Amino acid sequence: MARLLCGIDLGGTKLAGGLMRPDGTLLDKEVVFDHAGKDEQVVVHRMHDIVNALLARQHVTVEDIRGIGVGFAGHLRFRDGVTITTSNFKGFKIKNFPLRRAIEEYFPTRVIVDNDANAQGLAEYRFGAGAGYGSVIFVTLSTGIGAGIILEGKVYRGMTGTAGEVGHMIVNPGSPFVCGCGNHGCLMAHASGLALPQVVAAKRKLGVPTRLRLAEAEWDRIDGKAIGDGLAAGDELCRSVVLEFADYAGIGLYNLFQIFNPDAFVLGGGLMSWGGLYLERIRQKFQELVREMLFDPVRILPSKLEQDAGIIGAAALLLEEG
Amino acid sequence: MARLLCGIDLGGTKLAGGLMRPDGTLLDKEVVFDHAGKDEQVVVHRMHDIVNALLARQHVTVEDIRGIGVGFAGHLRFRDGVTITTSNFKGFKIKNFPLRRAIEEYFPTRVIVDNDANAQGLAEYRFGAGAGYGSVIFVTLSTGIGAGIILEGKVYRGMTGTAGEVGHMIVNPGSPFVCGCGNHGCLMAHASGLALPQVVAAKRKLGVPTRLRLAEAEWDRIDGKAIGDGLAAGDELCRSVVLEFADYAGIGLYNLFQIFNPDAFVLGGGLMSWGGLYLERIRQKFQELVREMLFDPVRILPSKLEQDAGIIGAAALLLEEG
Repeated sequence: MARLLCGIDLGGTKLAGGLMRPDGTLLDKEVVFDHAGKDEQVVVHRMHDIVNALLARQHVTVEDIRGIGVGFAGHLRFRDGVTITTSNFKGFKIKNFPLRRAIEEYFPTRVIVDNDANAQGLAEYRFGAGAGYGSVIFVTLSTGIGAGIILEGKVYRGMTGTAGEVGHMIVNPGSPFVCGCGNHGCLMAHASGLALPQVVAAKRKLGVPTRLRLAEAEWDRIDGKAIGDGLAAGDELCRSVVLEFADYAGIGLYNLFQIFNPDAFVLGGGLMSWGGLYLERIRQKFQELVREMLFDPVRILPSKLEQDAGIIGAAALLLEEG
Repeated sequence: MARLLCGIDLGGTKLAGGLMRPDGTLLDKEVVFDHAGKDEQVVVHRMHDIVNALLARQHVTVEDIRGIGVGFAGHLRFRDGVTITTSNFKGFKIKNFPLRRAIEEYFPTRVIVDNDANAQGLAEYRFGAGAGYGSVIFVTLSTGIGAGIILEGKVYRGMTGTAGEVGHMIVNPGSPFVCGCGNHGCLMAHASGLALPQVVAAKRKLGVPTRLRLAEAEWDRIDGKAIGDGLAAGDELCRSVVLEFADYAGIGLYNLFQIFNPDAFVLGGGLMSWGGLYLERIRQKFQELVREMLFDPVRILPSKLEQDAGIIGAAALLLEEG
């Protein structure tokens, strides 16, 4: 039997683990939502329980797996496997923590810890929408915005390991909208889930009509799901938000196209549930900007692996050459 | 004797060739300025004359060189060595032309044709300001703006070969300033030599004082040299242009930092002659944006090879592994 790969997706909301065959087949997975806000050691212990449960259910031991790959929702030093910082979203805060070593203490196996967007990008490149393309930029459009950069088959991580933070790219320096990082007018301040309350507030102030009836406190924490529901119900404000977010995402992809000239973009993340209107408008904005500067076709594709991309990509880290 | 490398820098203004040792020592060079606006075959013939003159002066033949590398100021298909388009700056227009094959017809040797910013970046990485760093982004701030992306020692070119067109990155979608490509608010529309007339006109309209006394037709073609002279003479408008250009260059570098997390940036191009005020303001803007998101020091360095980077880099293309 080919040895299995264990992948863990350590996000701000979700902690998920899975066992995968080297061909990308996910055999089993386990997902929990109770780790955010917990102490780092508690989170690691929770990961330990998940891995053990998966091994037990597949009737294998840690000797039967090739290793454990982890996709982490935050900055980290790739070479050391030490986390630097997370966005503190929903209390998820694992700072300056030797995550790789902590996992190695539980399991005598190879452990690789990487950024979650890198893992998702690798998954889409190997087994998903990006399969068969040379260089693929995976962009997650979600609560935050980030990228996994796969160049000629390899994850590109940069000096520290924090490459791909495309959400921090400034696209409108005079913007009134501010990102969690403190800068005005970065892509995340215009087109991420975290930006929704301020963008929606600006549209309400401009008098864009809406049939949504929310208390002020609800407007202040409006999320992608609420906008998607409003869009489905034909609400004008929600539609206007989706189109504006798509335009900024299109600008972001265009910028990345000029920089990377990749074969394909793969788009994932929660905002993709806004559906065809959103994706088509992103493609349209991209075309509007790129015009005759596109010399070979570039694909803009939705994620194929969706929620499982994190686990599959984390496991796939073990397939990369050392 | 180690075999020599021949490098040709084919720009819109300047056509330069040189012979280099594999250690980066430039033995001889020849520069002409009479090729722009000429027919493609005439330009290739001019390159032929330059190479022959260099060979004769060094008392060697084409058998004594390892090949000819060419850095071309425009888009091209790297694999085919066929040009796609140039900016038509000063009549320099070599479109859909099999440049590599045309040179091979004159010389029975290996020929590599690449974008000029890629060549310059490779030169700085191997023999210049970027030597010793892992991943280096070379950015040329000149009539246009472009980049040579050297990742872990290799030129990154993308699908077609047009990666690194960072000047087309949109940094201000609502901008009144337009690029030669037709888009509003790309980096080139705000911070390149080609943008000077429109940025200067806007400042004059705002009433920024100046002691420059130019005819309207001169204002309409004001260039980096005139701004540099004005800056040196203490002119307020020129100083204001230099600072604004530096701020946009700083935004561009910050965006590239978040995307690539490189070890170093190397800055070249004619606008760098604006000197310390310009470079320091670029660094300052970068710091202002990056703040606590910088986990390891990143260098922002001026080019070391300057005018010779193009020839040296073109020759250095022959040192890359096939």
